[in-house]
Parts: sequence; C-alpha cells; structure tokens
Amino acid sequence: MRSIEQYRADFMAHLEAKTPVKEPANLYKPISYILNLGGKRLRPVLTLMTADIFGADHKKALDAALAIEVFHNFSLVHDDIMDEAPLRRGKETLHKKWNLNTGILSGDAMLIYSYQLFESYPPVIFKQLLQLFSQTALQVCEGQQYDVDFEDRDDVTIPEYLLMIKYKTAVLVAAAMKMGAIIAEESVEVQELIYEFGKHLGIAFQLQDDYLDAFGDPKRFGKQLGGDIIENKKTYLYLKALEMGSPIQAQELEHLFSLKPTDPSDKIKTVKDLFHDTGAVTQSLKAIEDYTEKAFNFLDKLNLEPSKKEVLRQFGTSLMKRDV
Amino acid sequence: MRSIEQYRADFMAHLEAKTPVKEPANLYKPISYILNLGGKRLRPVLTLMTADIFGADHKKALDAALAIEVFHNFSLVHDDIMDEAPLRRGKETLHKKWNLNTGILSGDAMLIYSYQLFESYPPVIFKQLLQLFSQTALQVCEGQQYDVDFEDRDDVTIPEYLLMIKYKTAVLVAAAMKMGAIIAEESVEVQELIYEFGKHLGIAFQLQDDYLDAFGDPKRFGKQLGGDIIENKKTYLYLKALEMGSPIQAQELEHLFSLKPTDPSDKIKTVKDLFHDTGAVTQSLKAIEDYTEKAFNFLDKLNLEPSKKEVLRQFGTSLMKRDV
Repeated sequence: MRSIEQYRADFMAHLEAKTPVKEPANLYKPISYILNLGGKRLRPVLTLMTADIFGADHKKALDAALAIEVFHNFSLVHDDIMDEAPLRRGKETLHKKWNLNTGILSGDAMLIYSYQLFESYPPVIFKQLLQLFSQTALQVCEGQQYDVDFEDRDDVTIPEYLLMIKYKTAVLVAAAMKMGAIIAEESVEVQELIYEFGKHLGIAFQLQDDYLDAFGDPKRFGKQLGGDIIENKKTYLYLKALEMGSPIQAQELEHLFSLKPTDPSDKIKTVKDLFHDTGAVTQSLKAIEDYTEKAFNFLDKLNLEPSKKEVLRQFGTSLMKRDV
Repeated sequence: MRSIEQYRADFMAHLEAKTPVKEPANLYKPISYILNLGGKRLRPVLTLMTADIFGADHKKALDAALAIEVFHNFSLVHDDIMDEAPLRRGKETLHKKWNLNTGILSGDAMLIYSYQLFESYPPVIFKQLLQLFSQTALQVCEGQQYDVDFEDRDDVTIPEYLLMIKYKTAVLVAAAMKMGAIIAEESVEVQELIYEFGKHLGIAFQLQDDYLDAFGDPKRFGKQLGGDIIENKKTYLYLKALEMGSPIQAQELEHLFSLKPTDPSDKIKTVKDLFHDTGAVTQSLKAIEDYTEKAFNFLDKLNLEPSKKEVLRQFGTSLMKRDV
C-alpha cells in the first residue's frame, strides 16, 4: 500500500502526461487551465487506492482515475456558469477568464474526453466501467437539476436534500471506488459493498462541507465562511433548523433567508446562532457521524485483510474530522 | 431493402419509445421537446440503411441510430446558445423556451444519454462503436471551435473552411454510416470505405447547405434566404469569391461583410451578384459535384451487390440535387 501522497503524485504525473495540448488552442487551453487549478484530487486518489486494496496494480487504474477527475472538472465548469461563480479555487473560473461559449464548449469536450480515457481497458472491463460512468454522470446532472430546482422552492424536505447531495456528490465518490474494484476484477458483490461505502462516505463528506462552510476555522478554511448563508442555500443545517426550531425561530430563519444584505456579517452571525440554538448543529454533526458509521458497516462486510480495511477506515475518519 | 420512409418510421417509433420521461422534469422535459422538433432524421436513417445494406437486421441498429440523433440534437442545443439563436426548425430554441442553465444542463444530459444508448451492444461491438463515437464527438466540438474562431479572423483559407465543415458536419454523417457497418460486423476495410463515402457526402451536403442558404427557392426553402450573408458567415461561396474576384470585387465583398444593415435586402442582392460574377457559384456547384463524385469512388471500391450500391448512389444524388 502506498500513502495518499504517493497516489496523488502518480495521479498528477498522469494528468500532466495526458492533458491534451493541441489545436484548436481555444478549445484545449482552457481545459489545461482548469485541470491544473489544483484541488484535493480526492476522487482519483480513491480509485487508485481501491484498485490497490483489491490487489490490482494501481497504475492500471490511472486512466479511470483521470476520467473521474476530468468529469468532475467538467461538472465544475458548467456548474460555475450556472451559478455565475467568478472564482474557483481562488482563481478565475473558466467562463470568466474566457467567455460563456468557451465554458460551454470546452466543458463538452472534457465530458467526451473523460469517456475516451477509458479506451485503454479491454472490452468487457471497458463496458462495465462505462455503464457505471454514464449512470453516475446522469445522476450528477439530475442532482444539479434538483439543486437548481430547490432554489425556487420553500418546501424542500430533508430526504429530498439528501437525495440531491447523493446524486450531486456522493455517487461520483462511490463510482470512483467501484471502478477500482472493477479494474481489480472483483465480484459484483464486492463492487456493490465498496460502492455503498463510498456513497455513504460521500454523503458524510458533503454534510461536512456544508458544516465547514458555516463553522469552519477562518484561518484554515480556504474560502469565505458563510457562503451558503449569504446565498440562502437550503443546506442540511438550514432544513434541520427549520424542522427543529420553534415557530418563531423558523419564521426568523425564513425571513433571514429571504434577504441578501450588502454587509452579510450580522445575518451570518444570527443564522449561525439559530443553527446552534435549534439543535441543528448537533443533529448535523450526528448525521455526519451516522453516515460515516453506515459507510464503515459496509466496509465490515468486505472480506479484506484487516490492514487494508484499516486504510479505508482511516481515510473515512480523516474526511469526517477534516477542517478544510 | 426498405424505403427511406420506412427507416424513418421505424426510427421515429424507437425515438418515441426511448425518449426519457422521468424526474427531474425540468431536466428531461426540455430533452423531449428538442427531440420532437422534427428534422430530416438524415443521420439515423443512414445508420439503419447502412446496417441493412451490409446484411444486418436494421432493427439492431436502432439504438446506435438514436444515439447519433440524440448527440446531433445535443450539439444543436449548445450551438444555439453560442449563436444566440432564437429559433430552431421554426420553433423556440431550448434555451429561449426555458433558460441558459436548462440549455446547458439538458444538453449535457443528452450527451451522456447518447453514450448510454449503446449499452445494448455486446462488449466488443460496444467498444468499437464508442471509440468511433467519442472521436467523432470531439471532432464536432473542434469543428464548432474553428467555426467560432473563424468569426474573428479575416485570413481564413478554403482548406481551413473545408476542415471546419468536415469536423462540424461530415464526420458525424460518416460515423452514422460506419456504425451500420460495425453493427453488421463488416471488416475494418469495409468500415473505412463506407466512412469515406459518408464523409465526402457530408462535405457535399454542407456545401449544398451553404449554396441553398443563398440561392435556394424561397418557396421551397424553409428558412430565411441569405441568413449566412446577413450574419457575414465566411462560407465556401464567400471565400471562393474573394479568391477568384478582381481586387475591386474582393474589396467590395469584404466591405459588405463588415456591415449588418437593418434592411439587408440590398446587401443580399449585391453579394449574390458578386458570388455569380466572380465565378464562385460555378465553383461551388462544381465542388459539390466533385465531393459527391469522390464519395461515389469509395462506393465503387466496396464489394457489394450492384442493387445495394445503387441505393446509396441514389441517396447521394438526391442529397446533391435537393432544394431544401
């Protein structure tokens, strides 16, 4: 087994080698730009790690890992257009640095390129990987659509929110890991267990993301704190606070989430207090733990050496405990 | 062998049966809308016809044919955003009827769905079809990028223009036919011959499109005549007129293509006269004939019953002679 850093280094070398540098430059330069903006490279590392854990040479998983990362970045490029986001990882978003049309077209080319990256696998594995990939990619689109739909709705339920983050975030984490198992030619049963592990971890990951967005350490957290509150995003914290709060607290929260003040600091403070006072913070942290625990239950069912299970368990724990 | 109308009817029934009707409705309803706007269904008919000609049950080619059509419509949806086009086939474009975000996201889902449609093929055929599909899809993006790039350039050459229409239009026609051959499990040599046939026919088709845009019969032609002239599009006619015209004619043409008058009728008339006087019209019609002839040369090399070759030859001739 390698360390996370070793997987990441191998992945970065592969990304560098396989980033298309060709004509038309106006199509491919933006792709290089976005793929080199950085990020945790969480998903591709998971693919390499999983392949390794199931006994395959992790290098065999590099193309699948890259496909997952290119797809993830494609979805960020198109999401950033839809959200009118000016910045991504502290740098200009692709459509801001170039323009709308380049954002659309380079994104499209990335989606197609991510499919092409699987062509190094033999036909049967290729087809298994692609069926999983297409299903996942379509779910990511559906998750994004639910996210857009929720903006205009005031009756979003917690199960609906969980379905949305499952599609928008968790299934790609799950697929990243299942691909490692497919490449290692594990049984369908094993594939499903690692998929469920990744999916529950992915939900915990997104709930943790929502939590850190409001309560992260401003010194450690890279982006502006309270971004979701500023944008009136209906996160788990918000929905839980509405559910658990008194009628007066709920009313105050709904009122605050109808405003976009120029200076949001008072609003952020009041909302965070409400998240605490209603018990939503406690429930949110509990949900993160519960989903991580559910993930570990799937891990327990896997017939794997304890040392290998421990690698995945530690990875899960570190995600839950992360502060950035 | 069936008639074009029979292939189209079978295709339409398949499209109807396989158009996704599900949640989230804001993602899938726009997809139904655009897939049901009509059109000649040229590409899917070619896939069915080619499979039939090479001895496969044309029904086996229905999923590939639908994938090609869904992909084609995906590219129209994203192109219409880039071109800010309000109308498509006389109806509102998808992003006008809904909005920009829906145009992007439903387009993305269509691209992924087109990949999914190939999943009914066994692994080896599946992989062959997908390699061709991804290569083609990426070329279509590159063609669109060249088309965008050409708008800002005044030194576009005729070979560059031909490369652009090859990528943007012809390779998808070529791939539609090659897929029929792949499904019929023809040899790589046969696959390449039918691909080249389709590619040259596709170039002739686009040159004919450019010609009809300026010189079509207003009673028969569905859209506004002279659209390319109004938009100052650097088509084959324009580039050939610049090349063949006198310095004065070239200067006049370049000047006219720097204007967008409110009433374009005088401009259209003068430009069309220049296209005639410079000999560009004659050369354009000759190029259409040449590319059709080149297509037929590839057909001649195919080891096929004369009656089947005749079907393809007649189809090519009818495309060249079409007035809509």
